[in-house]
Amino acid sequence: MNNTKQSALSTDEVKNMLDQVDGWFVKMDKEISKEFQFADFKEALAFVNKVGEIAEKEGHHPNILLYDYSKVRVSLSTHSVGGLSEKDFEMAQKVEQN
Amino acid sequence: MNNTKQSALSTDEVKNMLDQVDGWFVKMDKEISKEFQFADFKEALAFVNKVGEIAEKEGHHPNILLYDYSKVRVSLSTHSVGGLSEKDFEMAQKVEQN
Repeated sequence: MNNTKQSALSTDEVKNMLDQVDGWFVKMDKEISKEFQFADFKEALAFVNKVGEIAEKEGHHPNILLYDYSKVRVSLSTHSVGGLSEKDFEMAQKVEQN
Repeated sequence: MNNTKQSALSTDEVKNMLDQVDGWFVKMDKEISKEFQFADFKEALAFVNKVGEIAEKEGHHPNILLYDYSKVRVSLSTHSVGGLSEKDFEMAQKVEQN
């Protein structure tokens, strides 16, 4: 996917792409997010840093919430298109793989 | 403050303690939070880690939201008292000092 699409995805496109990332939820076609559970705060923080590394590498920065001691919620959207782009799903996949 | 109070603070107590931490907001006497602005994602992430270190040291873990590329919101409450305790304000002060 070198030629990343830079327009907002349609509802159908979002549905199709959502099938390819396990456990991610979509909100109003504007954002995808997933909650990750860890053993403790330390592990959760390590995951935040891992996501941060991917974000810097990809030049695409999710919102990351570390909460309830051991949980992390990662939320993705593409500001420039006012919704979701392929880039969000690429990032979701990279987060899954790491 | 070795003898940390382990009961929820009253509205008046919260008001008094809030005066001692600059820029923190209280929500329904249940939580205090502050938003921090950084130059970029990297600096914001470094701050998340700094707060994480303090949290581990103090044994008191805020919710930490890294959002909009360069902002961090730190939110504190004390689950065991169902609201705010002195521990939250101690943590807020330590976050400010670091």
